Amino acid sequence: MSHHQGRFGVNYTPSQGWFHHWLDFDLDAVRRDLDAIAALGMDHIRVFALWPHFQPNRTLIRPRSLADLGSVVDAAAERGLDVSVDGLQGHLSSFDFVPAWTQSWHQQNLFTDPTIVDGQAAYLRAIAASLADRPNFLGMSLGNEFSQFSSAIHPQRQPATPREAERWMGTMLAACAEGAPRAWHHHSEYDSAFFDGRHGFLPSMASRHGSMNTVHSWIFNNTAQLYGGMSEPSFRLAEYLIETARGWSADPAMPIWLQEVGAPSPHVGAGDAAEFATKTLEYALDCENLWGVTWWSSHDVDRKLADFPELEYSLGLLTTDQTVKPQGAAVSAFARGHRKALHAGAAAQPRSTALVLDVGDESLAPHRAQCAPGGTFFEAWMTLALAGARPTVVLASKAADSAHLAERGITEVLRPADITPTLAALRR
Amino acid sequence: MSHHQGRFGVNYTPSQGWFHHWLDFDLDAVRRDLDAIAALGMDHIRVFALWPHFQPNRTLIRPRSLADLGSVVDAAAERGLDVSVDGLQGHLSSFDFVPAWTQSWHQQNLFTDPTIVDGQAAYLRAIAASLADRPNFLGMSLGNEFSQFSSAIHPQRQPATPREAERWMGTMLAACAEGAPRAWHHHSEYDSAFFDGRHGFLPSMASRHGSMNTVHSWIFNNTAQLYGGMSEPSFRLAEYLIETARGWSADPAMPIWLQEVGAPSPHVGAGDAAEFATKTLEYALDCENLWGVTWWSSHDVDRKLADFPELEYSLGLLTTDQTVKPQGAAVSAFARGHRKALHAGAAAQPRSTALVLDVGDESLAPHRAQCAPGGTFFEAWMTLALAGARPTVVLASKAADSAHLAERGITEVLRPADITPTLAALRR
Repeated sequence: MSHHQGRFGVNYTPSQGWFHHWLDFDLDAVRRDLDAIAALGMDHIRVFALWPHFQPNRTLIRPRSLADLGSVVDAAAERGLDVSVDGLQGHLSSFDFVPAWTQSWHQQNLFTDPTIVDGQAAYLRAIAASLADRPNFLGMSLGNEFSQFSSAIHPQRQPATPREAERWMGTMLAACAEGAPRAWHHHSEYDSAFFDGRHGFLPSMASRHGSMNTVHSWIFNNTAQLYGGMSEPSFRLAEYLIETARGWSADPAMPIWLQEVGAPSPHVGAGDAAEFATKTLEYALDCENLWGVTWWSSHDVDRKLADFPELEYSLGLLTTDQTVKPQGAAVSAFARGHRKALHAGAAAQPRSTALVLDVGDESLAPHRAQCAPGGTFFEAWMTLALAGARPTVVLASKAADSAHLAERGITEVLRPADITPTLAALRR
Repeated sequence: MSHHQGRFGVNYTPSQGWFHHWLDFDLDAVRRDLDAIAALGMDHIRVFALWPHFQPNRTLIRPRSLADLGSVVDAAAERGLDVSVDGLQGHLSSFDFVPAWTQSWHQQNLFTDPTIVDGQAAYLRAIAASLADRPNFLGMSLGNEFSQFSSAIHPQRQPATPREAERWMGTMLAACAEGAPRAWHHHSEYDSAFFDGRHGFLPSMASRHGSMNTVHSWIFNNTAQLYGGMSEPSFRLAEYLIETARGWSADPAMPIWLQEVGAPSPHVGAGDAAEFATKTLEYALDCENLWGVTWWSSHDVDRKLADFPELEYSLGLLTTDQTVKPQGAAVSAFARGHRKALHAGAAAQPRSTALVLDVGDESLAPHRAQCAPGGTFFEAWMTLALAGARPTVVLASKAADSAHLAERGITEVLRPADITPTLAALRR
């Protein structure tokens, strides 16, 4: 495996039973799903374990769950698909899955309690070890946006200071590496890490932990609400987050993985989803050092399952009966075209214009809110982008570091105050 | 089926994997457990579903879980064992199991939210319906001490007023009856219903809902702490709770089921457990209209499983490798002897002495605390019992109701103030 670029894949949402499929595991059903995914021209999938099902008791990591997961990875291999696995689910599509041994009468902080942290580490180590020898295993993500559990608005908030968050992250990534030393392991963050100055998980951690810098791009983060789902800011949200993540990277050459992006209704109507996908991908793939894109998601959620937020039902590239949806055809066509172009030598060019991000003390990033949709930094970046500048992001601490700027090919450094924002006029 | 008395059984705790056995269901392992239970001379078991496993999504009640449960009931039938099933687990041995669709971002009150209540009712109805035609199916309990979720000390308390608690209970029992109209359905309460004046679930509900009045007797409720585990008050706790429950019954002839009783360490040492069991059963079986006793539990909890309270590991009549423990031999011998005596015509005699329980407004029972270990009512009853009086309990509202007293064979009515408590002297 190498960090070669231009990878396209999907977040695998099983067509039968959603992630509850682990409870009624049916390898033939998985194979049918993977056939349809492979037929779209995808080269990898992201797979999600269900934590309470895999580890119902702290010292019971179920061999059958590990075997079922191994079967999924092997079935993917038969179809030419690589697999990255998220362990601590944790959070999926509005539902939280946490085992009884961490909850209620047994509740202790999910990020700091030594017993719980040991249990989590044992779990991630076991999954990684069980897959380490499979050639198509890419590696682990700790858990899908696991830091949501520390969010200020979480109903059972488990607070973590930046120091505690970073220690937890280091412990978890070390456990993955112990299990599978040669694989790539990551953490994944949601908006609060980038937009909420109180959040213990920091954007800078992306640059210090993990093999790649992962980005989750969801226009329902207020971008669509402010500017419309089929607006340039929505099409460019992934690009913006990728360049912001790059700004935070200690190593400018660290690859970036657009690990989640999707076309959520009602912000994007069914008739617009293909166009949304194509435009989003065009902008995202114009970023350097992008390892790849993993669309959310492979399949729609079965309407027989209740209580999902409405938008979650229709995010699939495929219907539950394996029909390719327009957005599936669009992502598929884009992927094939992009691979061909890469093969012909095309590559995203460096960005010579950088916007300076000043969040205050960069070890705590208290002024992150300016990066959120509607924030001054967000609107300045979008204004530059809409004017055709192809902006990237540089941290204030590096804005005068000529070696850093040269390494990245940056020749023009602008500050938000330099930009006359035009974006406010675009607000709905 | 009839409400004949002298039934002996066990709460079935699977020897392999505890209740997580549903995730790795192995009918042969269950059969070995049931062989060992039947060999003790037991005639029934109480079986516990795992709610999040059986109903992971509100509209997904997994056919495979229902089929596995049916297999357990059928395997029990092959061994002459009847089966009562608890649905909403819910709470088991310190662990809470609640599905993701009721938690966290989806959290709504477990007793009052119409959508959640509908989901619970559908679940109980489905279990009951799936078992209704099996001749050895006794019926349902709603869930093991489910009202714990409304406790004032629960970390994620879901409050319920008495009116809300009673409506919920009625809805759940109706759902069970819709699924299995001819079976006996119950609810089960833990100490707070009897001892905590703020608790929304009331002792009087036992008399208005369910086919039998269920009693859970645990000396770790402060009885052992105050008087010692191998003390007369501990041996007589089940008897006391049975007579208290009878006092609350609208129908004095309503059968009572001692649904849970066990010998918890360290209050009862391993060497004392057999004697504790025999004495507890002698006292309990001296109560009228006792349908039966269901010991907690069939099997020890495997020490390979972590994080249980220490006492939970050693409650079994059998070890995890099916060896009969001394308390298993004692319960077995008692059951066989008691059945023989019943067959010869023996029966518990009416209790002619009643202690008056005045809890204030009986529709809310604000002064329930006097019934708790160490309380004035508890100590007065125990004082009478230790003096040989075989006391029962009559509510203050019925203490002058001569028809009620005559129906129960009560000829002497005493009030706690009439009793010179001797029990305080017994406190450790």
